[in-house]
Amino acid sequence: MSRVYCALLHHPVKDRAGETVSTAVTNLDVHDIARSARTFELRRYYVVTPIEAQHVLVRRIIDHWTLGAGRRRIPERHVALALCESLASLELAIADVERREGVRPQLVATAARLTLQRPLTGFAEARARIRSDPAPFLILFGTGHGLADSVLAQADLLLEPISGVGADPYNHLSVRAAAAIVLDRLLGTEGGLR
Amino acid sequence: MSRVYCALLHHPVKDRAGETVSTAVTNLDVHDIARSARTFELRRYYVVTPIEAQHVLVRRIIDHWTLGAGRRRIPERHVALALCESLASLELAIADVERREGVRPQLVATAARLTLQRPLTGFAEARARIRSDPAPFLILFGTGHGLADSVLAQADLLLEPISGVGADPYNHLSVRAAAAIVLDRLLGTEGGLR
Repeated sequence: MSRVYCALLHHPVKDRAGETVSTAVTNLDVHDIARSARTFELRRYYVVTPIEAQHVLVRRIIDHWTLGAGRRRIPERHVALALCESLASLELAIADVERREGVRPQLVATAARLTLQRPLTGFAEARARIRSDPAPFLILFGTGHGLADSVLAQADLLLEPISGVGADPYNHLSVRAAAAIVLDRLLGTEGGLR
Repeated sequence: MSRVYCALLHHPVKDRAGETVSTAVTNLDVHDIARSARTFELRRYYVVTPIEAQHVLVRRIIDHWTLGAGRRRIPERHVALALCESLASLELAIADVERREGVRPQLVATAARLTLQRPLTGFAEARARIRSDPAPFLILFGTGHGLADSVLAQADLLLEPISGVGADPYNHLSVRAAAAIVLDRLLGTEGGLR
């Protein structure tokens, strides 16, 4: 059985100019990626930000839906948001996976645009690795203009970008859409209908 | 070349109890699905709502990003939002495709939960149909708790649900995530890396 985790990094990520910045947490990133994570049976979803006030925000979103009025109104939401927690750094997310699984996770980085010379791994190969390798995997998504090169450099696998189709491919998916597609390509199963 | 359109319906859709309602437009639905539509080379993305005030809202979002300050700040956004327009009904969306293509589109409906007895079409079959059939296709996504049965009943194809994995499959993706996965499964191409 696959042991897959994901993290949405708000730091260190790039801005439009390629500088390393911290971005603000977006409410719907917490919700949408939690629901996608639950759909594809991820074990945890880490919202990573070094900004203390943002942890309070994420905690309030999670509590509303897992403990508060939201749980009564939309019960499906809490089983998704229960996967989520905010942490101050990628290192803490890696440590949390290691604590749970007893072994350090393989890091799978995603990027829409490549700013670092590194070999890429295709989705089919990554999917096969996740299925066959007993190690846990931690899939990393970046906000802003993508994961900083320092994160890409430490990844065990750097996934090929999701490429647009046609003569003038467009590669500006929202992180919510990109995460959904990546998780589906790595872990999804189409129904028996062929 | 595929001629594919999509529409996000805010009416007629179901509420939690299965009653037909109109939902409110969500800003990020406009953005995210426009960006996914642009990525997969859709020709238009219709935001369908009968509520006049919501058209003003959608128009303001589109204008901000295609004409206003947003175009200067994030130029990639305008090529996505330029695909988008709001219309008052599904019938008007169908008529717009017919006006552009000279032929009525095949309607492809999506549903997370099936409340109507109808044969389903698998993603692989739908993908092959879209590739080989010269007709245009209009893919329909529902907000709220999904497309009303009256919409499902008039669809030419009803896609199989995106099923969660594992023993207790979860089927509560956000419509933004579901649309991304559906468009990727029907139209996406993984890179050459295998």
